[in-house]
Amino acid sequence: MPEFLNLLPPDDALNKFLDALPTYVETEKIPTSQAVGRVTAAPVLSPHPLPEFRRSTVDGYAVRAADTHGANQSLPVYLTLRDEVPMGATPDFTVEKAGCALIHTGGMLPPGTDAVVMVEYTQTSRPGEVEILRSVAEGENVIEIGEDVSQGQEVIPQGRRLRAAEIGGLMALGMTEVLVARSPRVGILSSGDEVVPPGQRPAPGQVRDVNTYTLSALVERAGGVPLTYGIIPDTREDMEAAVAKAKDECELVVVTAGSSASTRDLTAEVMDAQGEPGVLVHGVNVRPGKPTILAVAEERAFIGLPGNPVSALVIAGLFVTPTLRAMLGLPPERLQPTLPAKLTLNLSSKTGREDWIPVQVQPSPAGGYHAEPIFGKSNLIFTLARANGLIRIPADANGLRAGEEVAVRIFDA
Amino acid sequence: MPEFLNLLPPDDALNKFLDALPTYVETEKIPTSQAVGRVTAAPVLSPHPLPEFRRSTVDGYAVRAADTHGANQSLPVYLTLRDEVPMGATPDFTVEKAGCALIHTGGMLPPGTDAVVMVEYTQTSRPGEVEILRSVAEGENVIEIGEDVSQGQEVIPQGRRLRAAEIGGLMALGMTEVLVARSPRVGILSSGDEVVPPGQRPAPGQVRDVNTYTLSALVERAGGVPLTYGIIPDTREDMEAAVAKAKDECELVVVTAGSSASTRDLTAEVMDAQGEPGVLVHGVNVRPGKPTILAVAEERAFIGLPGNPVSALVIAGLFVTPTLRAMLGLPPERLQPTLPAKLTLNLSSKTGREDWIPVQVQPSPAGGYHAEPIFGKSNLIFTLARANGLIRIPADANGLRAGEEVAVRIFDA
Repeated sequence: MPEFLNLLPPDDALNKFLDALPTYVETEKIPTSQAVGRVTAAPVLSPHPLPEFRRSTVDGYAVRAADTHGANQSLPVYLTLRDEVPMGATPDFTVEKAGCALIHTGGMLPPGTDAVVMVEYTQTSRPGEVEILRSVAEGENVIEIGEDVSQGQEVIPQGRRLRAAEIGGLMALGMTEVLVARSPRVGILSSGDEVVPPGQRPAPGQVRDVNTYTLSALVERAGGVPLTYGIIPDTREDMEAAVAKAKDECELVVVTAGSSASTRDLTAEVMDAQGEPGVLVHGVNVRPGKPTILAVAEERAFIGLPGNPVSALVIAGLFVTPTLRAMLGLPPERLQPTLPAKLTLNLSSKTGREDWIPVQVQPSPAGGYHAEPIFGKSNLIFTLARANGLIRIPADANGLRAGEEVAVRIFDA
Repeated sequence: MPEFLNLLPPDDALNKFLDALPTYVETEKIPTSQAVGRVTAAPVLSPHPLPEFRRSTVDGYAVRAADTHGANQSLPVYLTLRDEVPMGATPDFTVEKAGCALIHTGGMLPPGTDAVVMVEYTQTSRPGEVEILRSVAEGENVIEIGEDVSQGQEVIPQGRRLRAAEIGGLMALGMTEVLVARSPRVGILSSGDEVVPPGQRPAPGQVRDVNTYTLSALVERAGGVPLTYGIIPDTREDMEAAVAKAKDECELVVVTAGSSASTRDLTAEVMDAQGEPGVLVHGVNVRPGKPTILAVAEERAFIGLPGNPVSALVIAGLFVTPTLRAMLGLPPERLQPTLPAKLTLNLSSKTGREDWIPVQVQPSPAGGYHAEPIFGKSNLIFTLARANGLIRIPADANGLRAGEEVAVRIFDA
């Protein structure tokens, strides 16, 4: 087992861990209407072109473009009104030369026509005749067959988290079911002899379990299914039994170690005993979260988090969320939007260590935003509740200065 | 009813609409463990201080700070080891002058002590005696009673969307239930004679319903409960009956109008007939989405969206999402994180109109990101599926230039 004080930078620690994870993704077919937020397990190919017929994009008159050449306000072209295109049906007529047909947005172009003149550029002075006041080019105001997608085209890649737009696209193609990655089950174990369930009144010296619930919320947001295993007493037998059970039932086992050094060591030993390769990382050069443990054994992943609720939640964002992304088949890179804000205070930091600082971002009277660091010992859960974002002090910096612009990662809200 | 072409800027349109909405929020008490993403309906006050006893933040020795004064590496102070503090229980001993007690992180300070010396700054050369190599101040490495929150303190304000951190905070206080705003029910009606359900093979001239599903996904993300009413035929009777039914069952009724002008007018007329004040906005100076309708009647809200799937989804983000925020009691201001990216193309825009352009953001070989506008007629749903964000061209601009830095609103993923 690596030495506790052999501290890796967080990115290196994560990569070492993810490289050792099995890449196999279990899949399931689910109704598209329930697939928002799920991740595609195979590329989606279009079964037919979209649209399947030439559609008008405007209200107006379907014409042969050639008939409108030279038309303008002072010298209109006169076309014979053939008929009206019914919505949702094939026109049962053909438009001959110098003819036109009334058409609505989304209507199917009648045979013989190749463009649509917007109703704004027409006049109907005599029944059965339409004045065209502007010429159109072939294809103008028309969506061609396959203009959205062609038959057989890959419309959604594998490993894409489905948003509203993709759900709509699948429905447009009639794909009412979709193959997605099964949501990884994440076992959550709390430990600590001082920890009691939230519904219980703690005796003096006891505190209520927080991590089970903050981590369940984080896991759900990240696309996993949290399974909770309660509060495990700080003995080797209890921890071994609980980890073994969770390993059988889950792809990822997360233990928030009791916060004392002996409990943390116990967690690492139990994880290391699960099989090869065992503990890969024990100690990460990040604050908060130095005692983080990352292990892989028998195609299962194990993460040991600090027991302090703030550290546990911040570090879960750095390690549990990317692990779930990998298990779901999502690409490791992720677009990380931030909010630029001016820091209100100097922050010092140790060179070589990455720091994550909770901040409260608020609109600044001077315009823009300012970010106020929320200090507080990492046992104080309301530190994080008072913050609305995090800033990162990279390992190569020794701090940030008041007035400096920082990129705040805003918490989901 | 206001004239169609009396176009308001989107912000003005939204404010006019929200000002007319009833502010009454229905509430319900739910288990805290299921409350992530829900919005508090009342301020949460702490029933007791947190922590309720003085806790150590480190592994070490609980001491009287005064006893350690002057201690350093070359001149240690020697203290008598009294006992070990048990985890999760009150120490049953008192530490007298020149005494100390072994304590673990999270342990309760024994009577008589007021600080903790980290184990790193101690040595135990003789049994029953501890060498203190560094002095500590009173309260050092200790969390005081009420240091996280004091009794009766407002720990979570009303109108806050609960994140993992707040769930943890509630659990730490033993509040296993929480009063939240009931999720508004949103009726979703599609209209258009050419529209068929996704499970059906469209005949020539027909297209599958997309908006019901994209809008359901959006509503769910925004904290509402979507109720779908299917595809309504383009007749006044059918539309009236469907809107009346949805109004009875929902707080907000969203109709995606068939895309032809006559259907849009029908939607506005039916909404206006629902009661006072009726249609407040008909036409917004935004692209896509000019034909947007906003109405209030009998304490219900009504939004008419363009039938084109891209317009419907973009405009729903501008109007449906903020309406749900207001109904949930969330503050109107929202921190909007963005990703800075360089635009790859010139974009022109009409001064006075606000434009929203779908873009695909990708890492740039030169570092940073570039944003490529995804063009496509707004009937093409895969336009949005290919994009991963939106950029806004404000009304007072006549476009954006290639190479300019833009702030991209990244879609949820």
